[in-house]
Amino acid sequence: MKILIINGPNLNLLGKREPELYGHQDFDSYFGNLQFEMKKVELSRFQSNSEAELIEALQKSPEKYEGVVLNAAAYTHTSIALADAVRAISIPVVEVHISNIYQREKFRQQSYIAPYAKGVITGFGLKSYELAVRSLLENE
Amino acid sequence: MKILIINGPNLNLLGKREPELYGHQDFDSYFGNLQFEMKKVELSRFQSNSEAELIEALQKSPEKYEGVVLNAAAYTHTSIALADAVRAISIPVVEVHISNIYQREKFRQQSYIAPYAKGVITGFGLKSYELAVRSLLENE
Amino acid sequence: MKILIINGPNLNLLGKREPELYGHQDFDSYFGNLQFEMKKVELSRFQSNSEAELIEALQKSPEKYEGVVLNAAAYTHTSIALADAVRAISIPVVEVHISNIYQREKFRQQSYIAPYAKGVITGFGLKSYELAVRSLLENE
Amino acid sequence: MKILIINGPNLNLLGKREPELYGHQDFDSYFGNLQFEMKKVELSRFQSNSEAELIEALQKSPEKYEGVVLNAAAYTHTSIALADAVRAISIPVVEVHISNIYQREKFRQQSYIAPYAKGVITGFGLKSYELAVRSLLENE
Amino acid sequence: MKILIINGPNLNLLGKREPELYGHQDFDSYFGNLQFEMKKVELSRFQSNSEAELIEALQKSPEKYEGVVLNAAAYTHTSIALADAVRAISIPVVEVHISNIYQREKFRQQSYIAPYAKGVITGFGLKSYELAVRSLLENE
Amino acid sequence: MKILIINGPNLNLLGKREPELYGHQDFDSYFGNLQFEMKKVELSRFQSNSEAELIEALQKSPEKYEGVVLNAAAYTHTSIALADAVRAISIPVVEVHISNIYQREKFRQQSYIAPYAKGVITGFGLKSYELAVRSLLENE
Amino acid sequence: MKILIINGPNLNLLGKREPELYGHQDFDSYFGNLQFEMKKVELSRFQSNSEAELIEALQKSPEKYEGVVLNAAAYTHTSIALADAVRAISIPVVEVHISNIYQREKFRQQSYIAPYAKGVITGFGLKSYELAVRSLLENE
Amino acid sequence: MKILIINGPNLNLLGKREPELYGHQDFDSYFGNLQFEMKKVELSRFQSNSEAELIEALQKSPEKYEGVVLNAAAYTHTSIALADAVRAISIPVVEVHISNIYQREKFRQQSYIAPYAKGVITGFGLKSYELAVRSLLENE
Amino acid sequence: MKILIINGPNLNLLGKREPELYGHQDFDSYFGNLQFEMKKVELSRFQSNSEAELIEALQKSPEKYEGVVLNAAAYTHTSIALADAVRAISIPVVEVHISNIYQREKFRQQSYIAPYAKGVITGFGLKSYELAVRSLLENE
Amino acid sequence: MKILIINGPNLNLLGKREPELYGHQDFDSYFGNLQFEMKKVELSRFQSNSEAELIEALQKSPEKYEGVVLNAAAYTHTSIALADAVRAISIPVVEVHISNIYQREKFRQQSYIAPYAKGVITGFGLKSYELAVRSLLENE
Amino acid sequence: MKILIINGPNLNLLGKREPELYGHQDFDSYFGNLQFEMKKVELSRFQSNSEAELIEALQKSPEKYEGVVLNAAAYTHTSIALADAVRAISIPVVEVHISNIYQREKFRQQSYIAPYAKGVITGFGLKSYELAVRSLLENE
Amino acid sequence: MKILIINGPNLNLLGKREPELYGHQDFDSYFGNLQFEMKKVELSRFQSNSEAELIEALQKSPEKYEGVVLNAAAYTHTSIALADAVRAISIPVVEVHISNIYQREKFRQQSYIAPYAKGVITGFGLKSYELAVRSLLENE
Repeated sequence: MKILIINGPNLNLLGKREPELYGHQDFDSYFGNLQFEMKKVELSRFQSNSEAELIEALQKSPEKYEGVVLNAAAYTHTSIALADAVRAISIPVVEVHISNIYQREKFRQQSYIAPYAKGVITGFGLKSYELAVRSLLENE
Repeated sequence: MKILIINGPNLNLLGKREPELYGHQDFDSYFGNLQFEMKKVELSRFQSNSEAELIEALQKSPEKYEGVVLNAAAYTHTSIALADAVRAISIPVVEVHISNIYQREKFRQQSYIAPYAKGVITGFGLKSYELAVRSLLENE
Repeated sequence: MKILIINGPNLNLLGKREPELYGHQDFDSYFGNLQFEMKKVELSRFQSNSEAELIEALQKSPEKYEGVVLNAAAYTHTSIALADAVRAISIPVVEVHISNIYQREKFRQQSYIAPYAKGVITGFGLKSYELAVRSLLENE
Repeated sequence: MKILIINGPNLNLLGKREPELYGHQDFDSYFGNLQFEMKKVELSRFQSNSEAELIEALQKSPEKYEGVVLNAAAYTHTSIALADAVRAISIPVVEVHISNIYQREKFRQQSYIAPYAKGVITGFGLKSYELAVRSLLENE
Repeated sequence: MKILIINGPNLNLLGKREPELYGHQDFDSYFGNLQFEMKKVELSRFQSNSEAELIEALQKSPEKYEGVVLNAAAYTHTSIALADAVRAISIPVVEVHISNIYQREKFRQQSYIAPYAKGVITGFGLKSYELAVRSLLENE
Repeated sequence: MKILIINGPNLNLLGKREPELYGHQDFDSYFGNLQFEMKKVELSRFQSNSEAELIEALQKSPEKYEGVVLNAAAYTHTSIALADAVRAISIPVVEVHISNIYQREKFRQQSYIAPYAKGVITGFGLKSYELAVRSLLENE
Repeated sequence: MKILIINGPNLNLLGKREPELYGHQDFDSYFGNLQFEMKKVELSRFQSNSEAELIEALQKSPEKYEGVVLNAAAYTHTSIALADAVRAISIPVVEVHISNIYQREKFRQQSYIAPYAKGVITGFGLKSYELAVRSLLENE
Repeated sequence: MKILIINGPNLNLLGKREPELYGHQDFDSYFGNLQFEMKKVELSRFQSNSEAELIEALQKSPEKYEGVVLNAAAYTHTSIALADAVRAISIPVVEVHISNIYQREKFRQQSYIAPYAKGVITGFGLKSYELAVRSLLENE
Repeated sequence: MKILIINGPNLNLLGKREPELYGHQDFDSYFGNLQFEMKKVELSRFQSNSEAELIEALQKSPEKYEGVVLNAAAYTHTSIALADAVRAISIPVVEVHISNIYQREKFRQQSYIAPYAKGVITGFGLKSYELAVRSLLENE
Repeated sequence: MKILIINGPNLNLLGKREPELYGHQDFDSYFGNLQFEMKKVELSRFQSNSEAELIEALQKSPEKYEGVVLNAAAYTHTSIALADAVRAISIPVVEVHISNIYQREKFRQQSYIAPYAKGVITGFGLKSYELAVRSLLENE
Repeated sequence: MKILIINGPNLNLLGKREPELYGHQDFDSYFGNLQFEMKKVELSRFQSNSEAELIEALQKSPEKYEGVVLNAAAYTHTSIALADAVRAISIPVVEVHISNIYQREKFRQQSYIAPYAKGVITGFGLKSYELAVRSLLENE
Repeated sequence: MKILIINGPNLNLLGKREPELYGHQDFDSYFGNLQFEMKKVELSRFQSNSEAELIEALQKSPEKYEGVVLNAAAYTHTSIALADAVRAISIPVVEVHISNIYQREKFRQQSYIAPYAKGVITGFGLKSYELAVRSLLENE
């Protein structure tokens, strides 16, 4: 099974900034470990700070992948355009968040994407990605 | 009269996805027919998923065009920056929507652009574009 | 094709009052011109300040007409009864507004009718009626 | 590792009612499979329709368990008392939902429990429980 | 001291459009004067209509600069992603506005950025930039 | 006992339109059956699409009747004037609705009339009228 | 000076109902006294329960009168159409209320008419009409 | 036909407390009379102050009964869990209230149960129960 | 009859500032004229910018006066303490405003005082005071 | 004088959890001290996590006690049923809170019980109970 | 222990006005009794209708007193300045209210002061002061 | 150029209290330094806890000064009267805040004064005053 992990704005800083919220590990090393451990899936990743590039990555994802793990970061709360892209594609999209957004500002508790996602996984640090990948697998 | 039709995010998927909302025709074939039928106007078109590119298309439009038909799609409801670009230019901009946004989610019923537009045309399928083009013509 | 244009409260004053909002032309002369130009359709018109008479005009419209152009004016924003009449009839109803209601008071930006209408055309002066009539035509 | 799965009101009907929302499998058979597959953890389960019994199960859980998977169902949205119990205990609690609550009524999108939970997993059917159990494991 | 002035969407039009709101001077000539007058600081500038480019300019700013003056224009009110970039960087960011946003639309009175900024300067025309630069200086 | 049944806007269409909401029976045949079955009461009926005529029917009702059954339809949610008429008269008024208004749009869940009515009966189809008539009888 | 007093819905019941709110005097006898005392003005009166008739009375009032005293009763709070008629006419309209609406339900504290009226007089019983007439006189 | 009447919290006090709101008759004597008069139905009753017991009574009701009359009292306004139980069962549930809740506090005017009930009967004193029972009968 | 006119904050500037809102006449000359014309009443006046002094003027007013005309200006909208003083005294208080507050900011449309006042007179320029004085007279 | 102290959900954990909010003393030892010091009153206590048991304790309290001190904890903010029980009984009920709820989440600042209570005492730690007991004594 | 009791606006009228809300006793005689009974504390009192004087009394209170009992009356609900003074001083301040503010207008249920106070005592008549004084004593 | 610095309630405590919010320097020493550094302007200062005195200082300021720097502290958020005084005077008023109010309570983020001010400077500690003074200078 081929799965694409899409990371949104400022997630390129992961591991470098605000470790109390997002932990100390950078995404590259986490991604390497995750691929190593989950041998049954073929993982890819994409990060962009651009709403348009994220939309386009979602639009094209069904050509190569069978599922998407999407951490849209701040765009989760502001981008109807991204949500429309999630809705428009035929493969399942799982929304993830590293931090527990329910412990943060009110405006981080609204997601335009969630109603169109298969499901949502929030608050488990980088492990949220692993859980999201597993949620896309039929049988392990 | 030269008119630019600007299409916003996810409208590159027109005719491919969610035909119950947006119909089965893709924009290219519709655009061809429209240009064919409306011989008095010279139509151009531009689509982008990027808020910035849409802003720039609007900023530059008065150099070449006398009117703009704008379907900003999801950015209609979230982009004050796009609305500011509409306000900043001197040629008339007509806001269009393919689907009847009043039958959809609450958040699709707010438009930042409408107060700065000449007028708004909503719900007539692709025919909304034709009506918008006509709304810009003095005498037919 | 037979189309009925229904005008709501205070639209009998058109052309006489508040020309900065509604223009200088009265509806009678506009209607004459419109019928003259659009030879393929047979247009009728009806104006009333009475919510009940407007409801009844809508209820009876399918007996004679194939489409309705409705400018419910202030009742757009307050009359669920009128909206129910729109919903109850089988022929398409197009909602029109002469002025750009998005540049006016907040309470003029809610329409009870729009969700049951085929589409909405707002802000093109009296030309809104012409566009609405065109929106009801299959092929011109 | 010992983990307690707590199910709230009406979840005793799982598999019997509203399969379009909750699926066809009853919780007992799912629980059996889950325990069978996840040999490294010792799973227990508790269901009650009583807010008080759920509070007490949470209060006592640290005596026997190292983590709790909590599907508080409707109480998620109305019970501050249950949320206070989650906050009061020292072991991690993971909030789960079977259906995607973001596709349902507005009032199901508020959780009193989430701010005190370790994380939230929503929308994966019964698989939400498996993911929640995995989220509590250090290394698999 | 090295300071970067970042200008957001539509500010490339400064001096060309809506002089009643933004004045007649373009930013280039203002910037030249400002650098000339404030000899103790080394000023740079960056403008983009792209949310992503603004985010990236902020992310990289600590490599070269000791402070940022940010006029995010319309993105001030809609971009949590930009606010997250402000929060993520270690150098002080001062939010500025040319016009007095408190005399304008309600939606221009909410700033996602302000809580993460060092301070906010609003309403002094282009002089807002000079004051912002001065606010970053320890001793003049 | 003499009871007047008052029906509001669009209820003249009963049985003809939207049978999934309002059923297939027209009010005349229902009324005939109801009078036939309830021999102890003398029933009259009145329908109008006009708010003013409904107000006047209510104002005059105490002259001839001992109770009113009122289905104000859409005016339930918008007419303070009708509610004032209910409040002004000395005989009991029972508010009825054919459909379950709590399963419909939010704006149909507010009633200006209910606080001044004796009681409210909602959702039992045409049987709502029978129940309302019975609610006005002392002893059957 | 010729002044028209317009009374809205349910005010035909004045003096007959709810004397604790509206007093014991009927409007006819009050009107006679008022005309007798105020010899410098020529008073007329009009009452209707019909929104349309009230709109039309307002529309025609400039033909015969130099000022209007308007107690729109419940329509004050619900009729944008009536407010539009007030706005459309050139002679001054004074809004009056018999009872102190600020001691009553919240929904009676919003007036669509007030922004277009010359002024508002509330709470002085029938004397509100006398004060309103006086407010229209230049010099007594 | 077998019908279960379920009474919620504090309704065990009926007839003992607040007779101005709930009347002087206790439920036992009323129930006796009701069963005596309605010979075609077999009535049972259940009262509990416990949300859980009410949920369970609803869950089990389809085993023995063909309809439920539910006065959930205060839980009407706060219990999504009870509403979920109503939704989960296959037999019709009629919501009743003794007092006219529209004359009381705002928070008593929201019902979580009503959207899932067959209908709602409010404000007729204990007679509300009789009307609810009748509403469940096909033919009397 | 002895009447005290109390003027609140910034009304000492009357006639000097913002004549488009408040007119050109200062209060002293208006007061002189008013006393001259209304010979049956003995008028006094008091102005203060201090909430406390206004409260005390109200508290002491029943010792010398039979009625109060109160233009609390901005304190109308913010001072519950002033409203409490109005409520606490036994003589009638009439609230007046010079400008039509319904044409101004939303926050000027809430009055803490109005529910405790005898009545409210708004929008007639300085003539509002004369009307207020007249409203306190039994017979002229 | 006999007084019953009723403690709601999670207060069985007092002294064991979250001492920064609720202090280190458990309720038993506090209760012993309080009874020892206040010799003129006979104190009883009752704790339950069950809304139903708390309702029943309140319903029965007038049989044995002359006053109730009620710390309903989280149910204060969510239980209309408990508030109804307070309203239904004839002896005074004093609402207490250990922590200052005004320094906590917004949802803890609404009390359904307070309008029916004699008074409310908030924020004095366990001493709140002593003050509540004293508030029920006529003369000390 | 030295304690200052501060009374806010209109509390100088205590015992003279609205005894149904505030009782018949004036504060002087109550204060005398209270000092007589509570021999271990040295009580002072201060009343002002002036927000500024109340602020200043609070600012200076730590020089002479070890605690403050503050009944800010109407300023409780409107004065952030007073709340800031409470926050600024180092000695404990207890907020008291004579009447049960939860039975009164909505706007009396918000307190700017409460979050900065040690605690709040509401609804016990003048006895609220005694309880507040006791709340400040370590051991009696 | 003569400039008056006006400080509102509790700012007399500056440097003595809450240094984490307002810094350690008292205003007197800061003012001395500021005057020393800014030789081209003649600075005066005024502090009061009284809303009325602040209003009067503003009203009189144009007699002596060419600009005002106003830190209205808590009155910023509650005093329409102060805002009206700002609006009434002809010289520019600059609103300043020492702390970043956007990091504090919601109610501190509304300013009645800002729409009438020339501009707003927030969050730079005491340096906010210096920036405000500079903002009033034409050329330095």
